[in-house]
Amino acid sequence: MSTNRTSDRPATRRETILTGDRPTGPLHLGHYVGSLRSRLELQGAHDQTILIADLQALTDNAGRPHDVRRNVLEVALDYLAVGIDPARTTIAVQSGLPELAELTMLYLNLVTVARLERNPTVKAEIQMRGFERDIPAGFLCYPVSQAADITAFRATLVPVGEDQVPMIEQSNEIVRRLNRMAGRDLLPEARALLSSTPRLPGIDGRKASKSLGNAISLSDPPAEITAKVRRMYTDPGHVYASDPGRVDGNVVFAYLDAFDPCPAEVEDLKAHYHRGGLGDMALKRRLDGILQELVAPIRERRAELANDPGAVLDIVREGTMRARETTASVLADVRSVFHLPPRPGH
Amino acid sequence: MSTNRTSDRPATRRETILTGDRPTGPLHLGHYVGSLRSRLELQGAHDQTILIADLQALTDNAGRPHDVRRNVLEVALDYLAVGIDPARTTIAVQSGLPELAELTMLYLNLVTVARLERNPTVKAEIQMRGFERDIPAGFLCYPVSQAADITAFRATLVPVGEDQVPMIEQSNEIVRRLNRMAGRDLLPEARALLSSTPRLPGIDGRKASKSLGNAISLSDPPAEITAKVRRMYTDPGHVYASDPGRVDGNVVFAYLDAFDPCPAEVEDLKAHYHRGGLGDMALKRRLDGILQELVAPIRERRAELANDPGAVLDIVREGTMRARETTASVLADVRSVFHLPPRPGH
Repeated sequence: MSTNRTSDRPATRRETILTGDRPTGPLHLGHYVGSLRSRLELQGAHDQTILIADLQALTDNAGRPHDVRRNVLEVALDYLAVGIDPARTTIAVQSGLPELAELTMLYLNLVTVARLERNPTVKAEIQMRGFERDIPAGFLCYPVSQAADITAFRATLVPVGEDQVPMIEQSNEIVRRLNRMAGRDLLPEARALLSSTPRLPGIDGRKASKSLGNAISLSDPPAEITAKVRRMYTDPGHVYASDPGRVDGNVVFAYLDAFDPCPAEVEDLKAHYHRGGLGDMALKRRLDGILQELVAPIRERRAELANDPGAVLDIVREGTMRARETTASVLADVRSVFHLPPRPGH
Repeated sequence: MSTNRTSDRPATRRETILTGDRPTGPLHLGHYVGSLRSRLELQGAHDQTILIADLQALTDNAGRPHDVRRNVLEVALDYLAVGIDPARTTIAVQSGLPELAELTMLYLNLVTVARLERNPTVKAEIQMRGFERDIPAGFLCYPVSQAADITAFRATLVPVGEDQVPMIEQSNEIVRRLNRMAGRDLLPEARALLSSTPRLPGIDGRKASKSLGNAISLSDPPAEITAKVRRMYTDPGHVYASDPGRVDGNVVFAYLDAFDPCPAEVEDLKAHYHRGGLGDMALKRRLDGILQELVAPIRERRAELANDPGAVLDIVREGTMRARETTASVLADVRSVFHLPPRPGH
């Protein structure tokens, strides 16, 4: 991985940032730590678009389109509730941008099937989802669809996890091919903005996922948060408070690392836990207090916004229409490379 | 092949017909016999759309977009020159219909990669084009793109060669899946209208193709037609007029079968040739006369139309805009199946 393609520091010059989520469920604390918090930092200083990737969610949820639809609203509520400001960050929905489908169709001519099958992210997800040879064609093509998303916004910086870096490489391959065809720098290549925060585990220590019910949602009521913190996996060998306990793999410490406003105190607690004399309940009470304080204003604002779903969808609609100005201009540029005439009315 | 899916007779009730060509070169006599003549018969009696499939042409001509662009005009000139009447047949260009890309992206979620790889037409063409594992992803996906074309017009009848029947089956599979999802007959299944005419060979007896230079174009000048008829493959064993000659595989007879207005006379000529005493030159002179008479008015009208390419492209543009009314309404229906909201401005 070359250093000029990825970066673990927020950029210093003004960048065009594309980020987004698949609307497969309400967002949880893992999203907050992994992406929402950094979007709040980046907003204003950069041109940031958050894409609600509903079409991509359909690539492996074609049988549950109604859930995907409902979750567009849930995810938008989460954005607004944590403080994403539609005046400074564009929130757009993928299915409202027909240019993305058109770009994808054009890019599919520039990528071979073999190249898609070699994509490490696709390979890993095919295995994870147990698709084998019954991969929906849309799923195989989704790196190309992501390249359409990234390029349609002329994004220069894309916040991703380490495992998503091959997607950006695929997008840049397409950009280089297009720029060669155009004989000029039609579109910019994008760099990956890697998160420095480790992934937040679910309360059982496994990967947080809606289907496992092991995540704490941004909309969970107080009692639910308390119950989930109580069920958190710690160290099964740590039976009495006086016993020495393990910190590594201890979910409570993973959450304290992510959310405790006093890292120095957390280090002291780790040492104390390690040598024995610190009970799980004391730790969990501390974490519960921190999470309640974090989630309370989000939950409150979210509930307020949820009273008027029409207004929230209007915000998304306006963002999508603003986004279309960019995506339509990029499509016109890419069509010209393929010698396709401008479309009447565009 | 079940009989209710295909038909070798022109339909009796009013059908919605989708047909088209990839704009990879000007049309030739093989197209005239294989499709143009039947389009002329069908026009008026049915709702017929001819789609100039420029995006599909790019799936294996991504490196030559300029040729594809120029050939959109060439093909449109051919249509109008043979008598396709834009008041009775809609001529539309694929890249002017963004709904087709959007439908394709949605349908890609309903088809597996394995299913696409099993498609006999795709298999055969992959072999023919020597793609092996370096198939452009767009090429693998093109049965889905064709399904988008067929369904976007609610086509009930699609004139095809025998080898294209699997494409219609793929489209119908998608239609059945959508109709199941919708719980009603959202889109009609299509039947293949098989041509009863055998494929017209090139002048060397091989498959007619622009790259082999073995086809007679509808725009060939008189001397070129004469020269090509003279070079036609007959029977290499038929050295003297008095020798008995072979009729099977004799390209001149294939053309006489296709174009001679007196089939009874052609049968007599075949018998004469077979028993000996009939020279190739006499036959070729007869064929040359017939082809000159057929092509002359087409060439003339084509040259006239070619003086004002803007007017021709306007006809295509108007046809495309008329076509969009249908494709936009189908897309709205299909989006509703996927619970996608109506798009503002549509």
